Amino acid sequence: MPQTSLMMTLQFSSSGTPVNVQAKHFLIPGLGRYDHKYSPKLPSKFPKASIFNSHQIPNPILHQPPVNQSVAAIVFGDGSESRLYPLTKRRSEGAIPIASNYRLIDAVVSNCINSNINKIYALTQFNSTSLNSHLSRAYSGAGLGNEGFVEVIAAYQSLEDQGWFQGTADAIRRCLWVLEEYPVAEFLVLPGHHLYKMDYQKVIESHRNRKSDITIVASNGITKRDQDPGVGVLKINTENQVMQYSLKSNKEPVNYAVAETLTRCNDSSYSYIPSMGIYLINRATMVNLLNNHFPKAMDFGTEVIRGALSLGMKVEAYLFEGYWEDMRSIEAFYQANMECIKKLNTGYKDSPVYTIPRNLPPTVVNDAMITDSVIGDGCILNRCKIKSTVVGMRTKIRDGAIIEDSVIMGSDVYQIEDGRESSIKSTSVPIGIGENTEIRKAIVDKNARIGKNVKIINKDNVEEGDREANGYIISGRIMVVLRSAEIPDNSIL
Amino acid sequence: MPQTSLMMTLQFSSSGTPVNVQAKHFLIPGLGRYDHKYSPKLPSKFPKASIFNSHQIPNPILHQPPVNQSVAAIVFGDGSESRLYPLTKRRSEGAIPIASNYRLIDAVVSNCINSNINKIYALTQFNSTSLNSHLSRAYSGAGLGNEGFVEVIAAYQSLEDQGWFQGTADAIRRCLWVLEEYPVAEFLVLPGHHLYKMDYQKVIESHRNRKSDITIVASNGITKRDQDPGVGVLKINTENQVMQYSLKSNKEPVNYAVAETLTRCNDSSYSYIPSMGIYLINRATMVNLLNNHFPKAMDFGTEVIRGALSLGMKVEAYLFEGYWEDMRSIEAFYQANMECIKKLNTGYKDSPVYTIPRNLPPTVVNDAMITDSVIGDGCILNRCKIKSTVVGMRTKIRDGAIIEDSVIMGSDVYQIEDGRESSIKSTSVPIGIGENTEIRKAIVDKNARIGKNVKIINKDNVEEGDREANGYIISGRIMVVLRSAEIPDNSIL
Amino acid sequence: MPQTSLMMTLQFSSSGTPVNVQAKHFLIPGLGRYDHKYSPKLPSKFPKASIFNSHQIPNPILHQPPVNQSVAAIVFGDGSESRLYPLTKRRSEGAIPIASNYRLIDAVVSNCINSNINKIYALTQFNSTSLNSHLSRAYSGAGLGNEGFVEVIAAYQSLEDQGWFQGTADAIRRCLWVLEEYPVAEFLVLPGHHLYKMDYQKVIESHRNRKSDITIVASNGITKRDQDPGVGVLKINTENQVMQYSLKSNKEPVNYAVAETLTRCNDSSYSYIPSMGIYLINRATMVNLLNNHFPKAMDFGTEVIRGALSLGMKVEAYLFEGYWEDMRSIEAFYQANMECIKKLNTGYKDSPVYTIPRNLPPTVVNDAMITDSVIGDGCILNRCKIKSTVVGMRTKIRDGAIIEDSVIMGSDVYQIEDGRESSIKSTSVPIGIGENTEIRKAIVDKNARIGKNVKIINKDNVEEGDREANGYIISGRIMVVLRSAEIPDNSIL
Amino acid sequence: MPQTSLMMTLQFSSSGTPVNVQAKHFLIPGLGRYDHKYSPKLPSKFPKASIFNSHQIPNPILHQPPVNQSVAAIVFGDGSESRLYPLTKRRSEGAIPIASNYRLIDAVVSNCINSNINKIYALTQFNSTSLNSHLSRAYSGAGLGNEGFVEVIAAYQSLEDQGWFQGTADAIRRCLWVLEEYPVAEFLVLPGHHLYKMDYQKVIESHRNRKSDITIVASNGITKRDQDPGVGVLKINTENQVMQYSLKSNKEPVNYAVAETLTRCNDSSYSYIPSMGIYLINRATMVNLLNNHFPKAMDFGTEVIRGALSLGMKVEAYLFEGYWEDMRSIEAFYQANMECIKKLNTGYKDSPVYTIPRNLPPTVVNDAMITDSVIGDGCILNRCKIKSTVVGMRTKIRDGAIIEDSVIMGSDVYQIEDGRESSIKSTSVPIGIGENTEIRKAIVDKNARIGKNVKIINKDNVEEGDREANGYIISGRIMVVLRSAEIPDNSIL
Repeated sequence: MPQTSLMMTLQFSSSGTPVNVQAKHFLIPGLGRYDHKYSPKLPSKFPKASIFNSHQIPNPILHQPPVNQSVAAIVFGDGSESRLYPLTKRRSEGAIPIASNYRLIDAVVSNCINSNINKIYALTQFNSTSLNSHLSRAYSGAGLGNEGFVEVIAAYQSLEDQGWFQGTADAIRRCLWVLEEYPVAEFLVLPGHHLYKMDYQKVIESHRNRKSDITIVASNGITKRDQDPGVGVLKINTENQVMQYSLKSNKEPVNYAVAETLTRCNDSSYSYIPSMGIYLINRATMVNLLNNHFPKAMDFGTEVIRGALSLGMKVEAYLFEGYWEDMRSIEAFYQANMECIKKLNTGYKDSPVYTIPRNLPPTVVNDAMITDSVIGDGCILNRCKIKSTVVGMRTKIRDGAIIEDSVIMGSDVYQIEDGRESSIKSTSVPIGIGENTEIRKAIVDKNARIGKNVKIINKDNVEEGDREANGYIISGRIMVVLRSAEIPDNSIL
Repeated sequence: MPQTSLMMTLQFSSSGTPVNVQAKHFLIPGLGRYDHKYSPKLPSKFPKASIFNSHQIPNPILHQPPVNQSVAAIVFGDGSESRLYPLTKRRSEGAIPIASNYRLIDAVVSNCINSNINKIYALTQFNSTSLNSHLSRAYSGAGLGNEGFVEVIAAYQSLEDQGWFQGTADAIRRCLWVLEEYPVAEFLVLPGHHLYKMDYQKVIESHRNRKSDITIVASNGITKRDQDPGVGVLKINTENQVMQYSLKSNKEPVNYAVAETLTRCNDSSYSYIPSMGIYLINRATMVNLLNNHFPKAMDFGTEVIRGALSLGMKVEAYLFEGYWEDMRSIEAFYQANMECIKKLNTGYKDSPVYTIPRNLPPTVVNDAMITDSVIGDGCILNRCKIKSTVVGMRTKIRDGAIIEDSVIMGSDVYQIEDGRESSIKSTSVPIGIGENTEIRKAIVDKNARIGKNVKIINKDNVEEGDREANGYIISGRIMVVLRSAEIPDNSIL
Repeated sequence: MPQTSLMMTLQFSSSGTPVNVQAKHFLIPGLGRYDHKYSPKLPSKFPKASIFNSHQIPNPILHQPPVNQSVAAIVFGDGSESRLYPLTKRRSEGAIPIASNYRLIDAVVSNCINSNINKIYALTQFNSTSLNSHLSRAYSGAGLGNEGFVEVIAAYQSLEDQGWFQGTADAIRRCLWVLEEYPVAEFLVLPGHHLYKMDYQKVIESHRNRKSDITIVASNGITKRDQDPGVGVLKINTENQVMQYSLKSNKEPVNYAVAETLTRCNDSSYSYIPSMGIYLINRATMVNLLNNHFPKAMDFGTEVIRGALSLGMKVEAYLFEGYWEDMRSIEAFYQANMECIKKLNTGYKDSPVYTIPRNLPPTVVNDAMITDSVIGDGCILNRCKIKSTVVGMRTKIRDGAIIEDSVIMGSDVYQIEDGRESSIKSTSVPIGIGENTEIRKAIVDKNARIGKNVKIINKDNVEEGDREANGYIISGRIMVVLRSAEIPDNSIL
Repeated sequence: MPQTSLMMTLQFSSSGTPVNVQAKHFLIPGLGRYDHKYSPKLPSKFPKASIFNSHQIPNPILHQPPVNQSVAAIVFGDGSESRLYPLTKRRSEGAIPIASNYRLIDAVVSNCINSNINKIYALTQFNSTSLNSHLSRAYSGAGLGNEGFVEVIAAYQSLEDQGWFQGTADAIRRCLWVLEEYPVAEFLVLPGHHLYKMDYQKVIESHRNRKSDITIVASNGITKRDQDPGVGVLKINTENQVMQYSLKSNKEPVNYAVAETLTRCNDSSYSYIPSMGIYLINRATMVNLLNNHFPKAMDFGTEVIRGALSLGMKVEAYLFEGYWEDMRSIEAFYQANMECIKKLNTGYKDSPVYTIPRNLPPTVVNDAMITDSVIGDGCILNRCKIKSTVVGMRTKIRDGAIIEDSVIMGSDVYQIEDGRESSIKSTSVPIGIGENTEIRKAIVDKNARIGKNVKIINKDNVEEGDREANGYIISGRIMVVLRSAEIPDNSIL
């Protein structure tokens, strides 16, 4: 009985260890430690043909059925709560604002829509409120097409299982009864907080042509992930077949020389390449692995995928060449924003990114010099200088402000500034950036209230610093002002 | 009885140990046992005037502001998982189908909409998937009006609190940061699975006129709840002021003679009257009670409301005369369906009930005699007799079937019946009611597959019976066939 | 001045003339009488690649591009106002209710959606209010997909052209600036009031494979249209190439022996087959024909298509075998409803039909015997007998009523029946079918008020009769009660 | 002056000839010249209580019913086609873009929504395609509330009336069968292309308190309309009762000394004040005037309102003090845009303006100096200077451009700029503003293609000029570049 062992684990772990004891958060490219014997594939029960909702007939599964009828995406809304803290203090990673107008999860969902995948299940658990709200409002006009949907499956209790999702594998297993609603051929498992543009149809095509059980997307691009503990590393042969799945971590060092691994070397018979945590897996294989082979596996990558390898299943790598960012740190998130400025500046050559439709007034500019920046909808920019900065929706920047190399997330609301109100809160700092304030290399979370004559410049050049009580932290020399934090006039940080 | 042990566990755990041992489900009219000293009201921080989303200006709080700008409803999607088991096996109480076309929660949400309350937060935790899905799709065309919404807040983990909601009070407390988004004047706390029609505006008007801290709606109607353990009972004086809140239960007998209590006797100075679990409470009072006075209270009724009484707050009862059903048992749910037939038969005099808009084909009737029944959208009725029965959407009833005094919940899908398919599953029973099958006094949950020549008639006249392995249970002599259960041909139950 | 010559043309052509002189209604399989010389194809200006709405990139036109990006449908909302009069008294043909829950145009639009055509322009002019309203509300949840839409183009005045659309060709020509918004490869021209199920993708595939300029869909099915004046007839060779387009009419007799023509005879080198008024035509060809070759053509079939033939263009026929009904008369409409009963009775094997989503209460049945009928949503059926009848939404049938072989369209609203009201209008007949009323072989339009003890039975067995002042007409022995008509108690019609 | 000749044509035509010769466009504050005798009010048939759509019960009409249940707005989408030409070349006045993100009609519809009027009928006829499309997509999330809608009624033909709407009165009369669908108490008649913020609830309150038959809103504000031919002028007494309605025009000079009239003089017993063309009128009065008293009236203001005065009805003026712009000329439209910059700069104190929700990427700024301007969503601004300019959505401004005192309407699409394309159209000017181009005091309509080194500066200081063949006109010294016009490189205008 799983509950009991879980309890015991909990009690043990509670003596000494921190954080998320019994209800583990998702760790998408997680820690694997099991090895399972092979057992023959069991037939998974295949749903009978039936007509859904408005009596539509789902097509029978042909050999190469259209993607939009045969693949369902499973998107994880949260990765780790700690890597992007404090941006994840009140929201999951997928809900973090990026590139002025978007949330992180928009990138992955838009990839799905642009790849004709329109059955999208989003599994959420950690700080999921704003993500759930976003998901249920966005994409409505995005053309999810016939029978398309973004369905949020929030962690829930049931009579059989009163605990939280215990990891990605556990989450999928517990939701199988929903995920199996439509007779898809494959599931596409996706982390919801990564940034990249990919046509998943190519992955699907490769998977089907090679008749794989599982296809793992791996980054063959310029992005280097080799310093990142927690990244899964695939050992592949010259035919891109996955031989081994290991984990780059302090605890479990990858058994290969770093120098020769993470770059793919064609002359060798094997190469090592980082997994992107994206899995395409046949529906029957998924059910079989989760319910029959590894019914206690919690993490998908390290337990189920490794398990599949150990069972001798056909696991292939699909190599992706483009830009990929897995948001492993505040710095990575910061760089991703800077990257967005560059990409947007080179023109709109790409497929669209969908998000919540908005209805904001135009941006008002009083007297601004703006360089290499992107400006979200409905900002109010007074006499200010903005350089190399991502300015989010409804940001108000007051006279004399100078912002450089920063990410200003903006505001959820406009604050009324009239006589009536100003009298009430003459002491309080209004939302936005105050007069004559200077901000350099900072991330300012939503609804922050930055006073007048403030300098957010990391004056002591601190590498890492926890000043949460004062409304900010420092991470990788980047100043991060917390959501709704108030920085008083004349502060110098 | 699981509740008790749960309580004990919790009490133990609270002495030294942390948080969420088993993650108790909501118990809306729950068990209270604390007594708190009075402490003066603390001012709650009031959100500054601000413009939301598309820079709307929320009206300042006037003395009698319009309801749709000044009241937010908090609806609990789940009550107890056990009272309506097995209907709650895969869904929370609020998601149970009722009256052919609806789900239980539609009644309460429609009451809100018809009362001009358009800020509706639905808190969900137990088996919440189908409820969350329903809530995010329904009511879109219902005219929630300017700034209106039905926002689902699924139970979630956060860094501060990794446990489930520990009860209704805990749930509200943990969601206060969301609930306080709009500067409403009062919160209206509502169980999501009760059936009644009420104009909450009258409750609000009474509350404001009497300048109450809390108003509790109590049932003064013909509905008798006096045998129901778990119901809260209010002792009120002749001015409807609440003097005491007690609980009718085996363990905590209400200290009054049953005969004279639950009917309101005007000649006496006090009377006893059952609470409906509906609370209107000033926003500042809510924050103060949950955060300052009773920061560890888990249940709203028994702990927070009792606590408020003990603090000497002004708690008033609003007496409701109409039909009210709190779905305390399978039998109550069955009777509520029978009641719906009667009510619908007398014409549409009432305000509308909103639900998910549908797009189904018309009901096809081959040759049916139908008496005192309601028929949902898109049914297929062959040569059959239907009497005193609620027939749900997409129900297929085959030749020779006789259905009486029953609730058939219908089907989520149409099953294709063509040659291709029939060969595949010649052995399996199709969805719907088979040929020459007879059903009396039964509840048939969704997607059930009832074979040919079946008799579901409670042949042995069993009062209570657990035959879950066979696809049904018996509760109060009512046969309950489980969701997606298959009853083979020629079975006699 | 174009108006004048147009007038003259019309007067000449009609020689005798009826009806609407200067603002001709669409006549989809219209009258052709021109012959044009061939002229070489002109290049039509092709829109530059551009990113629409949310900066989507439309795919470049590949050799065989996906249907949903390369075909736009042009649906005509109105055919002739007179064929289905009085059902068209206040609405266009496309808006006529059919099969309880639908409107005629739903069939064609659903064909488009099910064929992956999601750019749908609906051109409307005659009595278009209810059709426009329907089109802008329906299909929203139908999954029109990425960039999909149903766009209503109501007839409008402009500075260049202040007249109405003068026919189908004129309508398309005047709307070309809108229709060319997306760089589609072909236009699919469709009458909006026909009833059939067709996968247009097969037509498109055939058209592209054969590299045709124009493909005309022709009915090779069991449906006989040979007695129908106004139907276009194609003379095709053994390769299905169209040699001639002629018109079956009293005025312009088709030059072939009727007996041997409308059935396709394979041993002959030619055969004659009725056009369904469905044209697939290359975009450049369309622009060229309308603007360059035949800039004054008004009707699409008789002028533009004939003209294309005369120019030597490659015009092919696509033969459709299935059920097809073009609603040429009240009787045809009646039979189509009877056909719907049969089809629905045989099960839901087909692709779905989309319409406006509804939110109605279940149908309430007091004591009814229902045979071979379909019942729309939200009806109220008291003690009544219903046989071989289509019962529309919200129909109220009172005690003792007998309905046979009829089409009851139902009601737009529920009428409240309480004391207050009954006193006011004790003299007026309520909406619905009264007590002890008998209806046989009738069409009862929406919101009709049929009193008590009425007999609508065509007592004098009249073939055709205009009793519009009394609220009904007789057409082909079918009684047609007008929309909102009131038939007093005890009437015998 | 075209109006007059039109009238004459119509009068001639009515004697013997048919109907719609030229189909006059709406003239909202039109020409009146009739005088009618008084006749007693006839009771208009009042719709019976009934339950609409999802069986809602409309409230009975109380003495002071809530606005959202008792008032329906009738908005005219087009005024005159000529005043704002060439902006109205392809669109009606209501569809003209304004203030970067909006269309003119958004102002009036938002006034309605903010005034709790949620039954909005938009009557359209002239160049209505883009307006109809806008209206059916916008405001969906704006919270039109329970039973709320924006229903487009496009001009249509019917059997009784085959002509276009012959004026505002004729349009309302012909749509009465739709407008009477809900049992409202008053109609609010509104021009759809005016710019102002008004709480119509105050008008309604005044109307009801004074028990008026008709209330006309008149401009008592700083805006001077006295030079404007075509404006209606009200002669009112000290109680704001309307004594006379006259028209300021060359042909029909208002019979008062201009100097003393259009300012309200309190010491005199009468004053003259311009009508805003906004009428609140009791429902029964409306029906009675249009159908019984003046069944041939075409214009609402000059015929029906004057007629009501002549009948002795109680017609009151409601004086509005705020900003009001009726867009009587290109210059007025230009000034209104400049006014928007000012207003937006002073902060968001007002109620929101609703429009179509968008999903655009953030504005990308390469290196721009921006002063006193507003910038719409999704622009691309390279090294440029922008001053006192309204920049519309998706505007692309290239290196070295200087824009001052202008209105750039932006673009409907993004144009892809890649190698493939540039080769194809190396000769064509791309959408947007070219390198080193200078624009001063100009209105650049949507999708215009302004080349490199262009100067749009009105170099010859022309007052009025028609260069439409060259892609622009000059009106009041303002350069107006036409929609989709192409201005070649190095042009100096």
